[in-house]
Amino acid sequence: VQSTWLVNGLPGPLDPSDRGLAYGDGLFETMAAHSGEIRWLERHLQRLREGCRRLSIPVPDCAEIRRALSGHVPRQGKAVVKLIVTRGIGQRGYRPPPVSAPTWILGIGAWPPYPAANYTRGVTVTTCNLRLGRNPVLAGLKHLNRLEQVLAQLELRDARCDEGLLLDTSGFVVGGTMSNVFAVRGPRLLTPRLSFCGVRGVMRQVVMDFAPRLGLQAEEAEVGTGELREADELFLTNALFGIWPIRELDGRALRCGAVARQLIETIGFPRDS
Amino acid sequence: VQSTWLVNGLPGPLDPSDRGLAYGDGLFETMAAHSGEIRWLERHLQRLREGCRRLSIPVPDCAEIRRALSGHVPRQGKAVVKLIVTRGIGQRGYRPPPVSAPTWILGIGAWPPYPAANYTRGVTVTTCNLRLGRNPVLAGLKHLNRLEQVLAQLELRDARCDEGLLLDTSGFVVGGTMSNVFAVRGPRLLTPRLSFCGVRGVMRQVVMDFAPRLGLQAEEAEVGTGELREADELFLTNALFGIWPIRELDGRALRCGAVARQLIETIGFPRDS
Repeated sequence: VQSTWLVNGLPGPLDPSDRGLAYGDGLFETMAAHSGEIRWLERHLQRLREGCRRLSIPVPDCAEIRRALSGHVPRQGKAVVKLIVTRGIGQRGYRPPPVSAPTWILGIGAWPPYPAANYTRGVTVTTCNLRLGRNPVLAGLKHLNRLEQVLAQLELRDARCDEGLLLDTSGFVVGGTMSNVFAVRGPRLLTPRLSFCGVRGVMRQVVMDFAPRLGLQAEEAEVGTGELREADELFLTNALFGIWPIRELDGRALRCGAVARQLIETIGFPRDS
Repeated sequence: VQSTWLVNGLPGPLDPSDRGLAYGDGLFETMAAHSGEIRWLERHLQRLREGCRRLSIPVPDCAEIRRALSGHVPRQGKAVVKLIVTRGIGQRGYRPPPVSAPTWILGIGAWPPYPAANYTRGVTVTTCNLRLGRNPVLAGLKHLNRLEQVLAQLELRDARCDEGLLLDTSGFVVGGTMSNVFAVRGPRLLTPRLSFCGVRGVMRQVVMDFAPRLGLQAEEAEVGTGELREADELFLTNALFGIWPIRELDGRALRCGAVARQLIETIGFPRDS
């Protein structure tokens, strides 16, 4: 799968005066396509609409987006589909224009080669030194202001780990740099509430919605590093890879995931198999 | 002056896979051009280099940027020159590629019609409800993650004021949405230290450097709203407009600026006159 980019439905480049570039004034979704279908598409579009509402960005025409998706997502195999929505072309300065015409950008690219062992053996995670700033106004949104995640990943460049764990400036657990985290404690599934930072991931919500079917009780909570240490097992979620059990956190081995395995089997995931 | 955009020195649009759009993974400078010359160009380039160093973005070729500036900045009149530097085109995901080729983008646009009264009578300022998140890793940088400033300006859309004042989530004063703030107290010039958020403005530094020539002592400090209330006068700084005295903060009238006036006369400013 080669990378394809569409701007407002047409192949082509981006106006450099777009506010998405100038200020990160927008949102994005990263989605898994299998055999021409987008997993959890309605949930992604729903989160996008909610993000637009919170940032006062007009929602782009979802019928057009769906048309572009069905015209361009490959019918066979897997692909990563990225949908960016920005406030559009702006007058100079931070103040949004009185009326804005959002830009939507669709990128379709190759599926990443996730190792099968990430699902069966689990992954290794290292806590980053970088702490996330707390701001309830942006918390939960998958907005385009992602320098913190970029710097966290820079930190991990030479580390031998599959994902970085991020705490906020108050020391609470937020999640992975590109994933959400769950702690299993008996029948309870704890995940950070994300009132101050972090992204409310689509797969995080899927897991919370499916938990009762497995007799599990999902709860959003303030999660400290203590809760992670005391957990029976830990796992990560993300709309592309699905669910990965954590087998090692900061060098400490963890029991690798009966609950995670059950969730993987129940929900399914885009494993290469 | 019409808007001109160059990407890496050539007229044209931007690759939608640029990390500047995807993550706000970059920096910018907004500069005042007068009769073909960029005010404080060396200071702007110095801040840009320092920002690149902090974000581990390779510094683009400044000789090329200077050539583009001399070829494209209008010889007559005033213009706004925006220089954006991003980490360039990226592989998917937050992690920067092992070697990145930065993108630099130059935008040249019309000079904003600042009213002359902003310099003589002063401006009105309203404190925004939005609080800035605190993160020392990003503090001081003029990076592309500017959603907080956009949302603050959205708040002010219907307010009758010239600028918004921003506090951080701990209640400390940071500055204006697009400017830095100074409080005059006798011979002292206080300005927020910006260790946790905010942008270290070029004009802020110019004022701090010039202060001793006027017998003033410039100090970076933790500034609370109390320090603003107790000040003899307040003023704003920004590389485009220069220095604006504040004549009203949240409806309270202020003595309008002998010190600000002196600084305006000493440093000069890009007033339309």
